[in-house]
Amino acid sequence: MGRGVVAPQTPLMLADDLGFTRGDGCFDAVRVVVGETTRVDHLDRHLARFARSSAALDLVAPDAAAWRELIASALAEWAVPGEAVLKLVRTRGAEHSDGGLTELLTITQAPDATAARQGVIASTLNRGFASDAFHAAPWLLGGVKSLSYAVNVAAKREAARRGVDEVIFTSSDGYLLEAPTAGLLVAADDQLWTTPIAGTGVLESVTINVIMDSARADGVRTHHALFRPDDLADTDGAWLVSAIRGVLPVLEVDGRSLPHDSELTRHLARTAGF
Amino acid sequence: MGRGVVAPQTPLMLADDLGFTRGDGCFDAVRVVVGETTRVDHLDRHLARFARSSAALDLVAPDAAAWRELIASALAEWAVPGEAVLKLVRTRGAEHSDGGLTELLTITQAPDATAARQGVIASTLNRGFASDAFHAAPWLLGGVKSLSYAVNVAAKREAARRGVDEVIFTSSDGYLLEAPTAGLLVAADDQLWTTPIAGTGVLESVTINVIMDSARADGVRTHHALFRPDDLADTDGAWLVSAIRGVLPVLEVDGRSLPHDSELTRHLARTAGF
Repeated sequence: MGRGVVAPQTPLMLADDLGFTRGDGCFDAVRVVVGETTRVDHLDRHLARFARSSAALDLVAPDAAAWRELIASALAEWAVPGEAVLKLVRTRGAEHSDGGLTELLTITQAPDATAARQGVIASTLNRGFASDAFHAAPWLLGGVKSLSYAVNVAAKREAARRGVDEVIFTSSDGYLLEAPTAGLLVAADDQLWTTPIAGTGVLESVTINVIMDSARADGVRTHHALFRPDDLADTDGAWLVSAIRGVLPVLEVDGRSLPHDSELTRHLARTAGF
Repeated sequence: MGRGVVAPQTPLMLADDLGFTRGDGCFDAVRVVVGETTRVDHLDRHLARFARSSAALDLVAPDAAAWRELIASALAEWAVPGEAVLKLVRTRGAEHSDGGLTELLTITQAPDATAARQGVIASTLNRGFASDAFHAAPWLLGGVKSLSYAVNVAAKREAARRGVDEVIFTSSDGYLLEAPTAGLLVAADDQLWTTPIAGTGVLESVTINVIMDSARADGVRTHHALFRPDDLADTDGAWLVSAIRGVLPVLEVDGRSLPHDSELTRHLARTAGF
């Protein structure tokens, strides 16, 4: 925090940065929309989650004012119209130096999510943990947006091998959890549902929280509950929700079609700023 | 692979290196002993494991000849007497460049393991996976020495909080698996035992393999089998085995003393080059 904006191809990390050698750090990803003005979506909530991830890793709390300043200086130099990803990263620092934590951000163009916003085909993959495995086991880092995402990206490669767009992880006892980089939202009985956080290890979704807060303000009831894949056929639909890619209707899971109400998708997406 | 030796404080990685942002890569750690000559312990086996980790991550196979050349040029400039750690790292490369994989090595002085080699006190921690969770689930990256080690280092912080030296991970069904950075070796009935690889997700230990190969050559029978913590009291002893720190006798697990034969420890350690 103090170097400012550097050219994209500038090497920044030492080879013994613990974020690199151990995945020992955390990140958060924030959507930026550049139009006539530049909008940063739900930054307060993302910074709050970034602080929670840091605390779970026993990292000193992030300096929110310094981060806001760094973000402002990065955005001042970013003028590409459209959607961008602001990625905030903190690591435990270089193993053999006394330089303290490594803190940096990157801003890049967002991947094109146009097709995914029309609908995704998903496969379930067993994440190997029971749905209560994270109770009283803080060393498992449940709910932490850590830099140790190798399984998440391996699951995305498995999705590609299977010819599907997305993975939905399941618990070893058969419940739907989340996607590798998105939360799960379900509509049923004119109410909204998402995966419980405690015990399951899933990441709390900023964007699902935004949607649910808005729904409650409109008088819609919201819940945390576990669903099995077979339950989805009897709902009004399911979505994978990402701060960057938006609200992606799930059209099919493991070869079975799901109900889909495109008007409801549009409503939920608008609520979240998409 | 082509830059050669650089000064220790040289930034090397781009901020969007996938090894950094996703823990998407693998490593291996090799012991170097510098005396009148420089010895590299079990390099062939470590390079073979490095290749297996790479394959499991769908990374192109490492160029063994180029790695040996890079290792030789690093060792040519390393003259600190005593034990050192050669760490080999490969990542999927920078996300927004076409530079290919990131490949580098570091060489650093080994941490002082004198006390640990006399004996360690351990706590078990539930790793959250059943002992067969990794069967047919390659996306869980069982047995891969990946850069996503945040849970391993969180477990080591938990050990410090509990005032013990080491963690031994257990499966959710109650079996001993491995330590965050060491394998588990057990002696019982004049035979040697270690954790099965398939299904458990444990990393295959180069140093345990060396010890077992040597034992078999001496006519000792060796096995893969699952033990529960309570089983250890009826054995001839247990060790945590690391390529870097050596053969560490476990004196106590969860407050219960274990049998310990220091002559056997010395024999096993010598076998592995310690």
